[in-house]
Amino acid sequence: MATKEFTLQCPLPISDYPTVTLAHGGGGKLMHQLLEKMILPAFDSPLADSRHDGAVFEIGDARLAFTTDSYVVKPLFFPGGDIGSLAVNGTVNDLAMCGAHPMYLSCGFILEEGLPMDTLWRVVQSLKRNAEIAGVQLVTGDTKVVDKGSGDQIFINTAGIGILDHGLRIGPKQVRAGDAIILSGDIGRHGVAIMATREGLEFETAIESDCAPVHRPVRRLMDAGIPVRCLRDLTRGGLGTTLIEIAETSGYQIQIEEAKIAVRQDVAGACEMLGFDPLYLANEGRFVAFVGADQVDHALELLHSEEVSANAAVIGVVTDQHKGRVVMKSRLGTTRIIDMLSGEQLPRIC
Amino acid sequence: MATKEFTLQCPLPISDYPTVTLAHGGGGKLMHQLLEKMILPAFDSPLADSRHDGAVFEIGDARLAFTTDSYVVKPLFFPGGDIGSLAVNGTVNDLAMCGAHPMYLSCGFILEEGLPMDTLWRVVQSLKRNAEIAGVQLVTGDTKVVDKGSGDQIFINTAGIGILDHGLRIGPKQVRAGDAIILSGDIGRHGVAIMATREGLEFETAIESDCAPVHRPVRRLMDAGIPVRCLRDLTRGGLGTTLIEIAETSGYQIQIEEAKIAVRQDVAGACEMLGFDPLYLANEGRFVAFVGADQVDHALELLHSEEVSANAAVIGVVTDQHKGRVVMKSRLGTTRIIDMLSGEQLPRIC
Repeated sequence: MATKEFTLQCPLPISDYPTVTLAHGGGGKLMHQLLEKMILPAFDSPLADSRHDGAVFEIGDARLAFTTDSYVVKPLFFPGGDIGSLAVNGTVNDLAMCGAHPMYLSCGFILEEGLPMDTLWRVVQSLKRNAEIAGVQLVTGDTKVVDKGSGDQIFINTAGIGILDHGLRIGPKQVRAGDAIILSGDIGRHGVAIMATREGLEFETAIESDCAPVHRPVRRLMDAGIPVRCLRDLTRGGLGTTLIEIAETSGYQIQIEEAKIAVRQDVAGACEMLGFDPLYLANEGRFVAFVGADQVDHALELLHSEEVSANAAVIGVVTDQHKGRVVMKSRLGTTRIIDMLSGEQLPRIC
Repeated sequence: MATKEFTLQCPLPISDYPTVTLAHGGGGKLMHQLLEKMILPAFDSPLADSRHDGAVFEIGDARLAFTTDSYVVKPLFFPGGDIGSLAVNGTVNDLAMCGAHPMYLSCGFILEEGLPMDTLWRVVQSLKRNAEIAGVQLVTGDTKVVDKGSGDQIFINTAGIGILDHGLRIGPKQVRAGDAIILSGDIGRHGVAIMATREGLEFETAIESDCAPVHRPVRRLMDAGIPVRCLRDLTRGGLGTTLIEIAETSGYQIQIEEAKIAVRQDVAGACEMLGFDPLYLANEGRFVAFVGADQVDHALELLHSEEVSANAAVIGVVTDQHKGRVVMKSRLGTTRIIDMLSGEQLPRIC
């Protein structure tokens, strides 16, 4: 019987996880296990890579990047953004992380029966506005409606196509010992903004999501011919998880310094109060760039010329001391190993 | 206040439809109203067209097609297919309808917490198998998990990129009076297969979905240089709705003959029993091709050489008698006007 045959072949230890849990979508260990053991083997293609934000291939004389993300954020509207701004910027940023210039987006809606038409209208207007800001075109789409109770207001999928007009290969496998690690700005705001809205918390100052497109600073680096080794945005799993992925894939050690990682004071306060570590909080307008030590000053100068990365700073360095490890020097001078969370701090963060 | 401002601008008569209904996703009048009045104006691009299956544009020296669809079919598994085969073939077919050769697919999962891991495994294996059969590569993906009760097992979005290696413009606006309308095979099986499974109905013979990729017969037409005017697959809304869309967009009248439209006897029986009109039932491996009268014999010969279109036949002709109307000559010799349904016969058919 087909079902039984499939069960026998299922490569995940389904005795441990017979069903999908929220942690399987959290960007941590369980999600990586699910992707690498079950889903990626089906993506039987040299272009599919769990450790990268998109696929890069050539068609004719053009080199293209292609990526997709679904957005299930709850609530739909939050300080600094909404599901529409996420759906545009998330996919724009994934293309940028391939070193591509974003061009075209598709947009698929899954609407729940009973969704107020006005809510849909606000989301559609946000998509339009954010596509204009990012300079991308929404060119094709799809709308499905599911019965009440089978969805949650609005889910959006966007896929994107971008162009690479340079010959660089960008990815964790290009990282080398001695590379400097540049972080494009402060971290943790998106995670705190979502959580505060969801829990009805109020802080002295409004903490807004950092949701923004980051392709323009990336374009600056590409246009200037900076040989960037690796780019990654810091969404689900945050800075900590991203650096671990890069360390594991590259086979190098990553050393960072806590004191150099910008966390806004109100964000740090909220994290302390709520027991979150900003290192693992999701961001929607932040990325890390790995560049050779001799390129750092030029790269920083370029990044500082764009508002979204005006506070970019070097937070660490790549070494060949230990394979695949991330270590952080704390403010007190002690060193700790950064580990991947098994699940996630917050479900439905994006 | 932002909310109020948006409400005032909302272009749909929200007094009539203050919330999204299942019919807004059904492929009929309400869906077209939603798309054309609310969503398409946000797709502020000459490439976005509600009446076409994808966008076509040039990058470098390549002409590409780009399309997306989300799949929310219920149940996940049905005779002749499953959500995985739909997710591959639906997008492959949309690319084919642009006259493109499908190359790369993205795949975004939205999983509901509690989904049996074995179910996911079966769907992933189906995606893999169907991508192999269609000869496309799954190159990039995304996985999100939503809390129990906020989704329904598995939703899948696929987006696809295809190549056009010819200069033809294919679409409803290319249709001309005198064109012959070729239907690639019998209709109604997908709709009946889903409904029968959902309702627990059994027929004497199993009625299987026609779910299949149709890009190979299309490729035959392109390779032979047949100047195809318009291609459309017959998914949501079925043959009836598709022809109305083409008639309205082209500005011509479409005349079809009921006797020439193949409906399997068991499908016709099921429709009669359940009060469905096969003309509006969804198909997942059927399309119409509009070709000049002088090209019909050659086109049919090519289509007959591929299994999926072995029974292709001419079902009608384009005339300039009335603008944007579809008329059908019944088996009894009478003529009736085919109208678009306002909603759909079956929700969550794909």
